[in-house]
Amino acid sequence: MINDLHSRFSDIAGHMKRSAIRELLKLTQQPDIISFAGGLPSPESFPVKELEGIMVKVLQESGPQSLQYGTTEGDVRLRKLLIERYRKEGLDLSLENLVISTASQQGLDLISKIFLNPGDVVICGSPSYLGGISAFNSYGARLIGIPFDRDGMRTDELFSVLKELKENGKTPKFIYVIPDFQNPAGITATGARRKEILELAHEFDTLILEDSPYREIRFEGEPQPMMQALDDSWHVITLGTFSKIFVPGFRIGWVVAHKDIIDKFVMAKQTADLCTPVFLQKVAAEYLVSGHFEKNLRKIVDSYREKRDLMIDGFRKYMPEGVTWTEPEGGLFLFMELPSWMKAEKLLRKAIIHKVAFVAGNVFFSDNGGQNTIRINFSYASKEENIEGVQRLAEVIREEMEHHRG
Amino acid sequence: MINDLHSRFSDIAGHMKRSAIRELLKLTQQPDIISFAGGLPSPESFPVKELEGIMVKVLQESGPQSLQYGTTEGDVRLRKLLIERYRKEGLDLSLENLVISTASQQGLDLISKIFLNPGDVVICGSPSYLGGISAFNSYGARLIGIPFDRDGMRTDELFSVLKELKENGKTPKFIYVIPDFQNPAGITATGARRKEILELAHEFDTLILEDSPYREIRFEGEPQPMMQALDDSWHVITLGTFSKIFVPGFRIGWVVAHKDIIDKFVMAKQTADLCTPVFLQKVAAEYLVSGHFEKNLRKIVDSYREKRDLMIDGFRKYMPEGVTWTEPEGGLFLFMELPSWMKAEKLLRKAIIHKVAFVAGNVFFSDNGGQNTIRINFSYASKEENIEGVQRLAEVIREEMEHHRG
Repeated sequence: MINDLHSRFSDIAGHMKRSAIRELLKLTQQPDIISFAGGLPSPESFPVKELEGIMVKVLQESGPQSLQYGTTEGDVRLRKLLIERYRKEGLDLSLENLVISTASQQGLDLISKIFLNPGDVVICGSPSYLGGISAFNSYGARLIGIPFDRDGMRTDELFSVLKELKENGKTPKFIYVIPDFQNPAGITATGARRKEILELAHEFDTLILEDSPYREIRFEGEPQPMMQALDDSWHVITLGTFSKIFVPGFRIGWVVAHKDIIDKFVMAKQTADLCTPVFLQKVAAEYLVSGHFEKNLRKIVDSYREKRDLMIDGFRKYMPEGVTWTEPEGGLFLFMELPSWMKAEKLLRKAIIHKVAFVAGNVFFSDNGGQNTIRINFSYASKEENIEGVQRLAEVIREEMEHHRG
Repeated sequence: MINDLHSRFSDIAGHMKRSAIRELLKLTQQPDIISFAGGLPSPESFPVKELEGIMVKVLQESGPQSLQYGTTEGDVRLRKLLIERYRKEGLDLSLENLVISTASQQGLDLISKIFLNPGDVVICGSPSYLGGISAFNSYGARLIGIPFDRDGMRTDELFSVLKELKENGKTPKFIYVIPDFQNPAGITATGARRKEILELAHEFDTLILEDSPYREIRFEGEPQPMMQALDDSWHVITLGTFSKIFVPGFRIGWVVAHKDIIDKFVMAKQTADLCTPVFLQKVAAEYLVSGHFEKNLRKIVDSYREKRDLMIDGFRKYMPEGVTWTEPEGGLFLFMELPSWMKAEKLLRKAIIHKVAFVAGNVFFSDNGGQNTIRINFSYASKEENIEGVQRLAEVIREEMEHHRG
């Protein structure tokens, strides 16, 4: 090996860590573990049979073109269909406002690349999606976390932070928000809260990065407007993805923003992977027009609602006192708070012995907070597994409490 | 729009340019232009019919798994098959030495990300593949170009540069080489030259980044060993891809390196796109074992050899004196030198009027050299178009010469 390989790596690489979640996923792939750890959609939700017909159609109708290099911006038909779908959200977009990304992780990565210099400030929820935190960190950002209340990101705290930054001559590059069924907290921002965040972005002259992977998986209650829809001056960059509402294995997402931001994003994407797989874009477009998409989405929503309900029923039944949880109106996750003395990381080690897994919540906090929190995914496991897993989890927590009392 | 959007972008984004080639590609997509500009494989080479059966098989046999998130490292079966294929190159790899990338452009991007700090030196061929140059530039690298002779990158020049850097206390992060049928120069490094470059890397304690997209498209002559095969101490990182030997639209490539480099690469890829599309990896693996791959590869080699021969015959017949070109033993490109006074960029504008296109060679030089050079792709257009395009190109060059003589 070359001498001192590790001294050759870039400063950025020095800060890279393996994703705690993805490493944990490997551990929990033992077949007898019931895993609430990942953020995986239910494999039962994938339209395997429908895709068979659609793939054959795409190959027969545009085989060579679908296997060739494509434009960096993405398949025009797919982009037009996405723009059409956004009309019902009140968005009036043109092609130059929307680019296809290799799922929204690439959106997070390249938005970071085009905006962040080392030391730049990014404001995010505390807790927040780990893939976002990793992307911002990988370009040397300084993260400031804002806590939540039940209405969303706390704007009193956000105001204080923005004000203090301004007094120090600093403007954050953007505020990272997941307004619907936030990962990991499971909280949905109210319409009023969304407006307040947007007003603060205007007042303090910064951008909002709206990450919206779960929006269409709403079980109940009124949809609140997208941040992008509330804004009339392109202060919002929105990330969308098919990962949770179609299939994650295609890696297709998109970015909606002012055309000058999209233009810069396209340049960054040319260097990152030239284009997103053309064949899969064409299959996704065909799937959208086939009518299967909307039908399957309703099936997903119904199934996840049922899973959430079963899980919450189980919690009510089996969880010892002193444990609380969010009851999300949609999405894939709920967030659990353990007694303040209980360390989720330690609990996890015992839980794996009891053949149940989750993510210790502290990984979602940029400030090492949330030591007594856990994130629970309810979409991936089957209904039966969810019921069984809840009982195992309750048992482990109960044991831990008894052990604590001595 | 937000105030002063352009002042918000990162320093890196400030240096980003749209790829001259990809922008040109759009221009040349007018149907009546014969384009030698892109680096596109022939659409006739795509195994559309075979893929139909394979895709149905993958969906039927592992539908849900192929549509789910996958590991960042990539599909194990595909990685094992690639490792198996590398045995005939004399490489003895384990799984920890090979990671799947979203085509080799992601290899270039993430190798840059994990190694390059702004101001770090990268040595590359002059000329060199634009996607490589863009990736290195996008992390703020300082590029030093080394000219070629007919045996490959000139090692006398390489030695001088390495020596001078060392005297200034600097070690380049890596030397970027495309040993086989170099893009754009069409030159293949001799075995002796490969060894000399490797020895210099050892002597001056730096890495080699071996980009190898065309290696298996050899028309004639003896294959020279891969740089990776000549090395016994992991000084070489090799990038491979299916783009030119299968289909580019799948965006599947791979990186071969010491396990600690692969480990860091995996961390960077987790943040970049989590994983490469699982379904396409499974289809590629199935295609490899089906036997279609080797058969189709032979078809590609035969077809491109014939196209190269036709083109070179045409050049000999129609090109005015004072124009020279490389005659590559494989790959997709040849490189043409015009009289020293002739500016290729100016010629291109006239050529497009005459309905033929190429890439002005200066874009491949990091030092603004090669103003009188052009890169010509012979794989994409049909045989008939290649013959017609050569005549159009010869005509434009002839006119330019007559105009110059006054």
